[in-house]
Amino acid sequence: MNNFSFVNPVKIIFGKDTIKDLTKEIPADSKVLIIYGGGSIKSNGVYDQVTKALTSFEWFEYSGIEANPHYETCMEVVSYIKENNIDYLLAVGGGSVVDATKFIAAAACFEGNDPWDILSKHAKIKAAIPFGVVLTLSATGSEMNAGAVITKSATQDKLAFGSPHVYPKFSILDPEVTYSLPPRQVSNGIADAFVHVIEQYLTYPLRAMIQDKFAEAILTTLTIEGPKALATPNDYDVRANLMWASTWALNGWIGCGVPEDWATHQIGHELTALYGLDHAQTLAIVLPGVMTILKEQKAEKILQLGQEVFGIYNNLSREERIENTIKAVENFFEEIHIKTHLSDYGLNKDSIDKVCSKLQGRGWTLGEKSNITPDIVREILTCRL
Amino acid sequence: MNNFSFVNPVKIIFGKDTIKDLTKEIPADSKVLIIYGGGSIKSNGVYDQVTKALTSFEWFEYSGIEANPHYETCMEVVSYIKENNIDYLLAVGGGSVVDATKFIAAAACFEGNDPWDILSKHAKIKAAIPFGVVLTLSATGSEMNAGAVITKSATQDKLAFGSPHVYPKFSILDPEVTYSLPPRQVSNGIADAFVHVIEQYLTYPLRAMIQDKFAEAILTTLTIEGPKALATPNDYDVRANLMWASTWALNGWIGCGVPEDWATHQIGHELTALYGLDHAQTLAIVLPGVMTILKEQKAEKILQLGQEVFGIYNNLSREERIENTIKAVENFFEEIHIKTHLSDYGLNKDSIDKVCSKLQGRGWTLGEKSNITPDIVREILTCRL
Repeated sequence: MNNFSFVNPVKIIFGKDTIKDLTKEIPADSKVLIIYGGGSIKSNGVYDQVTKALTSFEWFEYSGIEANPHYETCMEVVSYIKENNIDYLLAVGGGSVVDATKFIAAAACFEGNDPWDILSKHAKIKAAIPFGVVLTLSATGSEMNAGAVITKSATQDKLAFGSPHVYPKFSILDPEVTYSLPPRQVSNGIADAFVHVIEQYLTYPLRAMIQDKFAEAILTTLTIEGPKALATPNDYDVRANLMWASTWALNGWIGCGVPEDWATHQIGHELTALYGLDHAQTLAIVLPGVMTILKEQKAEKILQLGQEVFGIYNNLSREERIENTIKAVENFFEEIHIKTHLSDYGLNKDSIDKVCSKLQGRGWTLGEKSNITPDIVREILTCRL
Repeated sequence: MNNFSFVNPVKIIFGKDTIKDLTKEIPADSKVLIIYGGGSIKSNGVYDQVTKALTSFEWFEYSGIEANPHYETCMEVVSYIKENNIDYLLAVGGGSVVDATKFIAAAACFEGNDPWDILSKHAKIKAAIPFGVVLTLSATGSEMNAGAVITKSATQDKLAFGSPHVYPKFSILDPEVTYSLPPRQVSNGIADAFVHVIEQYLTYPLRAMIQDKFAEAILTTLTIEGPKALATPNDYDVRANLMWASTWALNGWIGCGVPEDWATHQIGHELTALYGLDHAQTLAIVLPGVMTILKEQKAEKILQLGQEVFGIYNNLSREERIENTIKAVENFFEEIHIKTHLSDYGLNKDSIDKVCSKLQGRGWTLGEKSNITPDIVREILTCRL
């Protein structure tokens, strides 16, 4: 196990009918801005629950945060905050809304010239407006971490940042509010959480048993409960298990003391920025490719994943177990109705060229050993045509 | 899954040669009191590492915290703190030293007449002196929770308290400092952590998959790595896995949203207070008794424990699987050299009478269904003679 240092100060409020509890979490006399996306929170009752809980506060609202939230939109919200002297934010939505709120919270307090530097130059964040979360979609884990991904639509750059200042003060997770989600969003959330765990697990063994077994616990939960959520959307325990699994997939603890990969995400981000694919769609395309091209480097962990999560170990050669595990991951995505090849989304060899060219321009090499060059990315994507 | 609300703000600093990092965690100009137990930290080098890291601080020391720390000793330390205007505490030791430090931190700020009320009447704690931990023994999990157990030696009362004010600000976990522990302390720590998980797991099923699988991950790690730590004391990965497993056994997260038992601990505390047995010895005696007498109430979870942790599921009847699982738990304690019967410690039917009489006096009924009366405790202990 590697040395590590970690703390996660987010207060979790989990369960049925818990949105009303936000009243107790926000300091009295706060001027609160509710930040949300489209109108779904108005049709599923969440908006009403939130505004009722805010009765004793002066509150404002800003809707229109898009999926893969735009820097440009966030900066509009920052202006609105300054005009209205808002001092507390409440993100009501899924990962995009929470990520946007994190960036807004930091950008509103940023002392440099250009808040884009937070993303492009990792400019240091010294403060942020405090904020809470009412989560409406299990997926990104953003509700219990200090990271976010923002896209500049003008340049198609999708970049990440993180800071201890942007941990939510609290996150309310009511599994019942996820009943009414469209199946596509449910599937995307399951796949996203699955790949978050994989990025912190599918590297090389370090004998870190707690981290490995926790990762396998989350992966197993997602593979068992994921298809059930699509089949029986109103099963509380299924939704609760998925919501809690998604939070744990990226709250930082399973990544402590072990190597991390993140190549699948970084390649996927380029596909989303260039072609507008859903984040989870890009992950379902890229991950089997990463596993195939890096299968020697990742062999021990692929075998462990096969055995512990997919039950692949009997009477098979090492090579067969590796191949079957990669196939099991692909099948899992297809089982939750996410297509896993570039051609399923109308992409082709030219699209691969553009992704590789973008990565070449950034000068990045990816993966737990920083050995995935743009040429290897080409191999990864070519086997996913 | 039940509703829950939880936060754990402890910063963990984990790994080789990390004690020196405490310098950065304690506010400058603090007057620091090092609190420790016997002299073992002087012979294993920990004392030297700690005092070297405190060079830039004004520091004091107080040694002599005993196992099952005494209220009387803690109150001596409170006087010492007030005399010397100490404003930061550093617990250097195992669970007893950390528990004592928590109580001292709270008692020094207590505004009521008698700090014993914190334990006997759950008097509210409004503040505590901030403190950090350098852990030297993996066992109680006290390094990452807000609870403690203190014994009044005058009356043989062993009582628990908890408050968000007594979370450590940071805990340093260097697995290497555990190499030199006596085997008995290593065994005790493994058993203690094992039973902490059991108390939050072996109740009745609620389909809380993440909590169950995390609990099984910790139990499996302890059963695999525990015996190895005794056989090859200087294996870093083994010690690191045990240290991290012990912390997770009682940092609160696996207990979120699920029922908890704690009967084994509460019965065990009476055995320690009356007869001076090691805490872990009492747990190894009592747990198989609780499982035997409550086997119908706990049947589903005993079967799950047998299957997921001890690999008991093939070609056996339900009753055989339950019996074999209880036996496997008993064997695990014996494998790490902890005797599991009252007679192994010279105790007999009279000792059982005294324990039941103590519990009768407290008016407690124990367990996840609050249905373990003193009469049932008698049955539990009688099958452990």
